[in-house]
Amino acid sequence: MESIVDLDQLATLPGYEHVESEDVYAALDEAGRFLSEVVAPTNTVGDTEGISMRDDGSVTVPEQIAAAYRQLVEAGWPAVTGDPEYGGHGFPGVMATAFQEMLTASNMAFSLCPMLTTSAVEAFQHHGSDELKAVYLEKLITGEWTGTMALTEPEAGSDVGALRAKAWPEDDGTWRVQGTKIYITWGDHEMADNIVHFVLARAPEAPPGTKGISLFLVPKYLVNPDGTLGEKNDVECVGVEHKLGIHASPTCVMAYGEQTGAVAYLVGEVNAGMRCMFTMMNDARLHVGLEGLGLSVRAYQLALAYAQERRQGRAIGAPKDQASPIIEHPDVRRMLMTMKANIEAMRALILDTSAAGDRSAHAGDEADRVAASNRAALLTPIAKAWATDVGVELTSLGIQIHGGMGFVEETGAAQHWRDSRIAPIYEGTNGIQAMDLVMRKLPLAGGAVVADYMAEMEATAEALVAAGDGAAAMGTALQEAVGRLRESTEWLLAAEPVDALAGATPYLRQFGVVAGGYYSSRMALAALHRLESEDDPWLRAKVDTARFYMDQILPQGAGAVPAVVAGGEQLFAVGIDLLD
Amino acid sequence: MESIVDLDQLATLPGYEHVESEDVYAALDEAGRFLSEVVAPTNTVGDTEGISMRDDGSVTVPEQIAAAYRQLVEAGWPAVTGDPEYGGHGFPGVMATAFQEMLTASNMAFSLCPMLTTSAVEAFQHHGSDELKAVYLEKLITGEWTGTMALTEPEAGSDVGALRAKAWPEDDGTWRVQGTKIYITWGDHEMADNIVHFVLARAPEAPPGTKGISLFLVPKYLVNPDGTLGEKNDVECVGVEHKLGIHASPTCVMAYGEQTGAVAYLVGEVNAGMRCMFTMMNDARLHVGLEGLGLSVRAYQLALAYAQERRQGRAIGAPKDQASPIIEHPDVRRMLMTMKANIEAMRALILDTSAAGDRSAHAGDEADRVAASNRAALLTPIAKAWATDVGVELTSLGIQIHGGMGFVEETGAAQHWRDSRIAPIYEGTNGIQAMDLVMRKLPLAGGAVVADYMAEMEATAEALVAAGDGAAAMGTALQEAVGRLRESTEWLLAAEPVDALAGATPYLRQFGVVAGGYYSSRMALAALHRLESEDDPWLRAKVDTARFYMDQILPQGAGAVPAVVAGGEQLFAVGIDLLD
Repeated sequence: MESIVDLDQLATLPGYEHVESEDVYAALDEAGRFLSEVVAPTNTVGDTEGISMRDDGSVTVPEQIAAAYRQLVEAGWPAVTGDPEYGGHGFPGVMATAFQEMLTASNMAFSLCPMLTTSAVEAFQHHGSDELKAVYLEKLITGEWTGTMALTEPEAGSDVGALRAKAWPEDDGTWRVQGTKIYITWGDHEMADNIVHFVLARAPEAPPGTKGISLFLVPKYLVNPDGTLGEKNDVECVGVEHKLGIHASPTCVMAYGEQTGAVAYLVGEVNAGMRCMFTMMNDARLHVGLEGLGLSVRAYQLALAYAQERRQGRAIGAPKDQASPIIEHPDVRRMLMTMKANIEAMRALILDTSAAGDRSAHAGDEADRVAASNRAALLTPIAKAWATDVGVELTSLGIQIHGGMGFVEETGAAQHWRDSRIAPIYEGTNGIQAMDLVMRKLPLAGGAVVADYMAEMEATAEALVAAGDGAAAMGTALQEAVGRLRESTEWLLAAEPVDALAGATPYLRQFGVVAGGYYSSRMALAALHRLESEDDPWLRAKVDTARFYMDQILPQGAGAVPAVVAGGEQLFAVGIDLLD
Repeated sequence: MESIVDLDQLATLPGYEHVESEDVYAALDEAGRFLSEVVAPTNTVGDTEGISMRDDGSVTVPEQIAAAYRQLVEAGWPAVTGDPEYGGHGFPGVMATAFQEMLTASNMAFSLCPMLTTSAVEAFQHHGSDELKAVYLEKLITGEWTGTMALTEPEAGSDVGALRAKAWPEDDGTWRVQGTKIYITWGDHEMADNIVHFVLARAPEAPPGTKGISLFLVPKYLVNPDGTLGEKNDVECVGVEHKLGIHASPTCVMAYGEQTGAVAYLVGEVNAGMRCMFTMMNDARLHVGLEGLGLSVRAYQLALAYAQERRQGRAIGAPKDQASPIIEHPDVRRMLMTMKANIEAMRALILDTSAAGDRSAHAGDEADRVAASNRAALLTPIAKAWATDVGVELTSLGIQIHGGMGFVEETGAAQHWRDSRIAPIYEGTNGIQAMDLVMRKLPLAGGAVVADYMAEMEATAEALVAAGDGAAAMGTALQEAVGRLRESTEWLLAAEPVDALAGATPYLRQFGVVAGGYYSSRMALAALHRLESEDDPWLRAKVDTARFYMDQILPQGAGAVPAVVAGGEQLFAVGIDLLD
């Protein structure tokens, strides 16, 4: 973490004056202990028991999960980044990011509940009125109440603008909301006293599409003026999905206001809901990328332990008549190194994106804030899509290392893979992320945002070349890879929309792979620098891991270039009637 | 199929004189109808109900599955390739391969039962005594009785030589077998009257390792001299696995001979069991490759239908105020084309391998038989491993095209992905296939077998270049790809074992991708040739699909080269204690 994020520097920014990097590291150590003792043991039972819906529409969650949630809230973890004015601890987002990685590794389905609450808080802090915040914000920050993001409707998934839920104002200043939403994660449960739904709907006479969407706060239970809970709002869970993974997380069909209209409160301006939602989504997208990472980490730990224990065959050079631990076989070692090198690269990308988010909110200088905000905007779709695609691949390697045992559910490896498969889909499919990257993010500041990032990569490459010896080859590899990325980038910036869209997904892959090489290089450089004064095997392992990435993974980036620049025509050459 | 396999030519070989290619195509059409009506509808219920074990150890299978199996046997499909002397129809293996693709697409878990029976038959035909064949072979060929392959033990998975099951001869010429086997697919059920287990065990004083393994036939029910079934043998299912996929297929822990020793009959010579097993395994390995293909086909059909139906967003150039079918979006089209182009390439590789197997058994000339056998030996690990790895990737794309619906089990897309995940593991993990390719297959005939295959690829590339116009670019791409493959191959042939093993998996991937390009090229060439006399849109689609493969998928092969030639040292640079 140190070689990617300068915590001491972050701590100098306004609002972070109380942050000491030692405290952050100590707290994260403590979090690791807490999560491995309290949350990690709930992962299997959450998967096998799962959630269910009672006849009255309420949702049951395994008791171990609910108990773990209560302990999490008591220990104060959900409040890490929250506004101190409302019960939060005001730590930087990078700390929450590091925490969330461990939380996801402990139990991804469980992690979604505090994660979505935090993302909702992020939007609510920015856009909610003081009156609303006075009632709801502290409860959400502490996790006493949980939050949901209610966007999707059956006919409005990737195309949010097509949603139909409607809202109308009442005389008392409140609103009513009516509509059905699907895929509402943690949409109903009894782990917390109240659930605060953030619902997108259309006000009367709203323009069509995304310009006519407003954001509403819809509590499950109404809140009395004295802060106590009042009667139940017109909010019902009418179904739960039977899913491939994350079984412990209820994915609800929610009916808002079917009886009389659900009591709702406007967040932000009328018809400005998309902007609020993007605040929520950007935070959530980075955290979804983190899910790819967190699951990969747990899958890696499980596979690493198994590979040391399981003996099969005789490795080259091993004593005769004795089976070797499979970790001694080159192919198993390749799988483990592939997991490790990708994990370190993904973690660095995500932390860097998160730190950019912190600077975008806290930097003292407006220009710094804008630059950081643009950087976060550029990297978020890559962190989301690349890390989740790679997450599916690495959890699959986790299964493969287990051989036949990997296909048996009791082993646990299969669950990580199943759980991982949602991450490339939700919070904007990875195809949507690629479109976002190519159509919105590359043109930011006339292409200067991506150009600055590539210049940074090249500077790192030059520093490696200058470092000589074993480092120079890594530097040359990075130079070449960035050169190919520049080529793709320039082609896309000049392309017609249909051609740019056609190349978006392979481009995002290429970008992710090259960014991974950039962060691997930075980590190698930092380790090489420290190795000059201390010969620490851990630092040498850092360099060797980076070298593996640069030699064996990075070259795959160039393999995507022909697909990036192939254009749209080829994709449509075979007519629909001839596709089968 | 026609452009890859010359059925008319196959039909001239001894033993295939009765084969008419028209009959084969007509029969396959009929099979398609039968399977879509009888077997395909059992896929979902098989997954959701699954199998279970009764208290008495017997295994229950959903009634729809058992009924479909009886209809399959009545219709005569399992007997397609069997020896006509024993009730088979004596058709070439390529026909069974085409049938098995459809059967797998219909219900993979179900398909394993006839598939393993056929593989066992293959070995039994070659190595069984006439007395044994008289009792068992016809029942197995027709599918009235089913067969299993009982190899794996808890401590003997990839390392078959470590197995401990023992066998001893009795005075009456029979044997007894005792031992526990795991992962026995369709190890117990009541769909057929008898189950014939082919069990690997060690005879008294057998040498250690694979040289001391013998193959035994162990029936569930003993067979009386008149062919009727006698008492139950000492064979018990003592457990079934709870698996990630293929829920309708019982994966059994089998206890052979726990009471008194199970009555067994030796197949082939004592201590020659590995050779028999390899006959069984080679056939099964190709069929596992076929599972990657079959599931991809079903996943593709499902996704293609959904992409035409589901409307979301507006495609470029589409009428305003109307959502477009998602198939009009470039990124969805990319996913579909990726599925289609890979499916066609995989199918061609598998059919070509299967046809080589037919020629290896039936060619009139000894030299032709040897050449065909070597060709099949070279391609089998590639067909198994590449097609199953790609199968997991394509079924994953099938989920992605469905968006959120893909993660909901009812959609069916998730089942294909779960089912596909076993294929890279069983019948020798894909790591084992890569070792087999590099250590045993490349050196065949002093490297001449792989050299001949690469020369064939190059000849196809030259023919494309000579065809000019749109074909020339494909030819150049293939030339370049084969050049890189030759480079990897030569490096591996000269490498130290640890370095060759280190590069084996990326090499197999490279080989698969390039072989896919070779078959795509052959299909394109054949289509271009036919287009000279008839302007058939279907033929143009063939060319366009091949072009997509050559432009956008083939370049990924070269991306693997640096990993192939990186050597073993880098994989072991980070010590085990520093891996976490």
